[in-house]
Amino acid sequence: MYIEKINGPEDVKKLSVEEMTQLAEEMRTALLTRASIHGGHFGPNFGMVEATIALHYVFSSPEDKIVYDVSHQTYPHKMLTGRKDAYLYEEHYDDVSGYSNPHESEHDHFTIGHTSTSVSLACGLAKARDLKHEKYNVIAVIGDGSLSGGEALEGLDYAAELNGNLIIIVNDNDMSIAENHGGLYQNLKLLRETKGQAECNLFKAMGLDYLYIDQGNDVASLIEGFKKVKDTKKAVVVHIRTQKGKGYLPAEKDKETWHYSGPFHMDTGKPLVEEVSEDYSDVTVKYLLDKMKKDPTVVAITSGTPTVLGFTADKRKEAGSQFVDVGIAEETAVALASGIAANGGKPIWGVYSSFVQRTYDQISQDLCINGNAATMVVYWGTVYGMNDVTHLGLYDIAMLSNIPNLVYLAPTTKEEYLAMLDWSMEQNEHPVAIRTPGSTMISDGKEVTKDFSKINTYEMTQKGSKAALIGLGTFYSLAKEVAAEIEAKTGTKATVINPYYITGIDQAMLEDLKKDHDVVVTLEDGILDGGFGEKITRFYGNSNVKVLNFGLKKEFLDRYNVEDVLKANHLTKDQIVADIISTL
Amino acid sequence: MYIEKINGPEDVKKLSVEEMTQLAEEMRTALLTRASIHGGHFGPNFGMVEATIALHYVFSSPEDKIVYDVSHQTYPHKMLTGRKDAYLYEEHYDDVSGYSNPHESEHDHFTIGHTSTSVSLACGLAKARDLKHEKYNVIAVIGDGSLSGGEALEGLDYAAELNGNLIIIVNDNDMSIAENHGGLYQNLKLLRETKGQAECNLFKAMGLDYLYIDQGNDVASLIEGFKKVKDTKKAVVVHIRTQKGKGYLPAEKDKETWHYSGPFHMDTGKPLVEEVSEDYSDVTVKYLLDKMKKDPTVVAITSGTPTVLGFTADKRKEAGSQFVDVGIAEETAVALASGIAANGGKPIWGVYSSFVQRTYDQISQDLCINGNAATMVVYWGTVYGMNDVTHLGLYDIAMLSNIPNLVYLAPTTKEEYLAMLDWSMEQNEHPVAIRTPGSTMISDGKEVTKDFSKINTYEMTQKGSKAALIGLGTFYSLAKEVAAEIEAKTGTKATVINPYYITGIDQAMLEDLKKDHDVVVTLEDGILDGGFGEKITRFYGNSNVKVLNFGLKKEFLDRYNVEDVLKANHLTKDQIVADIISTL
Repeated sequence: MYIEKINGPEDVKKLSVEEMTQLAEEMRTALLTRASIHGGHFGPNFGMVEATIALHYVFSSPEDKIVYDVSHQTYPHKMLTGRKDAYLYEEHYDDVSGYSNPHESEHDHFTIGHTSTSVSLACGLAKARDLKHEKYNVIAVIGDGSLSGGEALEGLDYAAELNGNLIIIVNDNDMSIAENHGGLYQNLKLLRETKGQAECNLFKAMGLDYLYIDQGNDVASLIEGFKKVKDTKKAVVVHIRTQKGKGYLPAEKDKETWHYSGPFHMDTGKPLVEEVSEDYSDVTVKYLLDKMKKDPTVVAITSGTPTVLGFTADKRKEAGSQFVDVGIAEETAVALASGIAANGGKPIWGVYSSFVQRTYDQISQDLCINGNAATMVVYWGTVYGMNDVTHLGLYDIAMLSNIPNLVYLAPTTKEEYLAMLDWSMEQNEHPVAIRTPGSTMISDGKEVTKDFSKINTYEMTQKGSKAALIGLGTFYSLAKEVAAEIEAKTGTKATVINPYYITGIDQAMLEDLKKDHDVVVTLEDGILDGGFGEKITRFYGNSNVKVLNFGLKKEFLDRYNVEDVLKANHLTKDQIVADIISTL
Repeated sequence: MYIEKINGPEDVKKLSVEEMTQLAEEMRTALLTRASIHGGHFGPNFGMVEATIALHYVFSSPEDKIVYDVSHQTYPHKMLTGRKDAYLYEEHYDDVSGYSNPHESEHDHFTIGHTSTSVSLACGLAKARDLKHEKYNVIAVIGDGSLSGGEALEGLDYAAELNGNLIIIVNDNDMSIAENHGGLYQNLKLLRETKGQAECNLFKAMGLDYLYIDQGNDVASLIEGFKKVKDTKKAVVVHIRTQKGKGYLPAEKDKETWHYSGPFHMDTGKPLVEEVSEDYSDVTVKYLLDKMKKDPTVVAITSGTPTVLGFTADKRKEAGSQFVDVGIAEETAVALASGIAANGGKPIWGVYSSFVQRTYDQISQDLCINGNAATMVVYWGTVYGMNDVTHLGLYDIAMLSNIPNLVYLAPTTKEEYLAMLDWSMEQNEHPVAIRTPGSTMISDGKEVTKDFSKINTYEMTQKGSKAALIGLGTFYSLAKEVAAEIEAKTGTKATVINPYYITGIDQAMLEDLKKDHDVVVTLEDGILDGGFGEKITRFYGNSNVKVLNFGLKKEFLDRYNVEDVLKANHLTKDQIVADIISTL
């Protein structure tokens, strides 16, 4: 096999076009085998195999610098830059991350996992090159789906002003994670249909040069095109038409499902492990579809990740105009929600914790200053969520909970979540965010009668003394376990509190605790810095009550083991119990 | 005068074109008189007088809903919607805010002060309208300068998918605050030159319908154009060419200076009060221009506000390619800085506190995960800064200080600032942000010898006992005053600490304080929630040391009086002294 002999781009350059075409097939087979066993981003990589080969044939990485947007399509690049073993041999599958990573290779220039960043980052590399009077190519590779993001559009606009070499490869497979949304995709379609000849051209309108390559999965065509733009003196877009999931029939047919895949049976494409248990996305879509039927002003919004709210293709169809995908455009999603709420609609936006930070300013300015009653649901804000450094769910409390006017809620069970959701959708007073708990969804069947309009009122679920445990969201059950263990070990029955509200403190209850408690303990599923617990600690700063805050250290973790991280952060039940007993 | 009889849009509709043209002149005179006495946003309003009259003539606000981007150009709208007195009579000048404001009028739909939001917000109004099966026009008015912002470009892209009425007025005066930057402005120029006929059209490429109005300061042309798009069934851009500062010669000639103006002599255009004292912007540009000459890899970046770093037009020219304006595009500014640093350059980005929040994700992902040594300088992060609700500088500590890997520094004097700046520009280890102090710049002439690479090492500037005062940035001098007052009143010499580092605690020093201090006091010029003081309080949570945190409440203030706010937040010297003495 050719792939076995590729130890770096220099080995690609030795091959003929026929050999590179064969190499592409071998790489696809390796990608398919690895994906079926290991899982990972699928479709984007399958479409980019030939283009990656051609890039390394024409250009000379790492001197020429290639930046991959969101880096979902970075596996072929890794295979050709000294990391093939991680794709060929099962025992090495975990040697590499799923994203571009400078710690792995000099051929990677940034750790990237969020979309729409490549053009602006590449502009930076190019600008530094020009300041230093160096000469080489800087190349950004961006998928069509990422173009709808504000940073990408800003970057395209700025690139024209660089006045230096920059090559922007637009990998157009006519798909985002789901189908594309936004007017610019009509223009990409027009350009594909006219083989790049249409006068009305988004990229030219942004001041960029432009080249179209129709056969984006043909090595020879790509090489020819890339040679034309090599050493360009200004910014140029190379628009290549590729096929997402190319080479694996189930993925070619159902591009959305195969954007990312867990392990699967190669013959059938069926997942090895069927997900059977209900999760917060399932619960949400069920609630919303029912509510939409009763109320035509209810509208669910996604920014390119429709399934976070549970809206698979069939359910999107069912919701009709009451479901909106703005494309990967979180800023517009929040502003849209604010505008809908301002005009009497009932918007709900679902977002992963890792992506909510893409729209801080809009949450603060467009939404919270205006006090519009939109609902946001934040998923996977938990140590039990995604564990790549670019996709952590540990920072949303620190970010959201310090924005004035926002009510950020932390349910602990399915029932609490639905009660909060329903309250939020019906009220007209507050911008509300709800953080779904991590780990397995707990459903206790209890009716929730709490009136959530009484902002910042906590619930004491067990009245005790000496120690009070305030367990937020995911960690409420941990608080209960700790209390039980303390009682078993010391006979002291601790107080247990479900705070519900992340954004404020229940002053009356906290004041009352001073009477018969020596220590108050907070537990939160996120970083401690700027988080929930510190607000409690500040309240008690001038009192004799001691406060212990449990949560995670402010740091960037990468591909961690949950148990190890919990232990390192003193978050196991035994550690917490020991700390409290030593304080009592 | 006609203007005196305009109590609402219905009065505009009664006028003939000739009368409206006369009205425009009257409005301009009133705007000029008010600006010369009161100050405010100047150029944007002067260009939009005729268009605003035509909008209110053709459309029926508030049923038809007009959303003004950044709302710098909202004064004429206010004059025509029942708020003329605030522009005609000096005693009423302060009756209105400088921004669109639903609390003032049903003709304003959002409180807006940040750029690039109007299209997305208007999409929200339109979407709610369609869900409710109502019929009216929704109009976004956006200046050409705001188009470079990510949210605006996202919004244009999404607007095409609305499938309902939306009119986007692009007010093209060929200027941002300074000159425009970005490739899209070449396209606007082409469209102006071809009177909208060029085939290559950014807005059409975004899937939008398009109409060009060449005479954007002619009431009749505008009325004719607006009538054409009224009740459109899909999103349409109306591109109008206007003249920024029209009608006042100094403003027509120097559009940048006259974007915003303080009070001035009407005859000469000279400011009534000359700014003579040096500020942090002056200090920065002086330092940078000198450094640029010695090191060609130093590059200053702005996102549309060049003077924040002190770069007036002459100094931009002096810096040449070592100064970059990316346009109003904070996300790209941060990514660009990260890319430059990654490739061996020395980038510095200057930004107002209120706008740094427009790029949380890029600071976290593009910059801090990658650990690139870019420098950010945050200006006006202080209670003494801008006091409109949309431009507050109270939240940057809560936002930035909880992002891992970032070193956020708080100098207290000019000398400390320059030492930090120089250290930051020369080091290769950390992304660094520096928060310039508020109030008058203090220069004590002291040589700063501290090694800032020793992260999180505070400086004890006065060793005392019982009480320790940690005064951050602006409030360090307050801490010294409080200490002096406590000593005068009680004889107790308190410890005083300059922490320098916002992002971390000096554990050794804090531990040491436990020996002979009963109370530790923190003072910070920002909100307490998620801020600096809470990190100190958490450290002492499990000790006998009491902690008092002084800072601002988490809330949105609007057009406040500093003294009142300080008092309300218990931030006067006397209040703090009393609190500490009662704790001792």
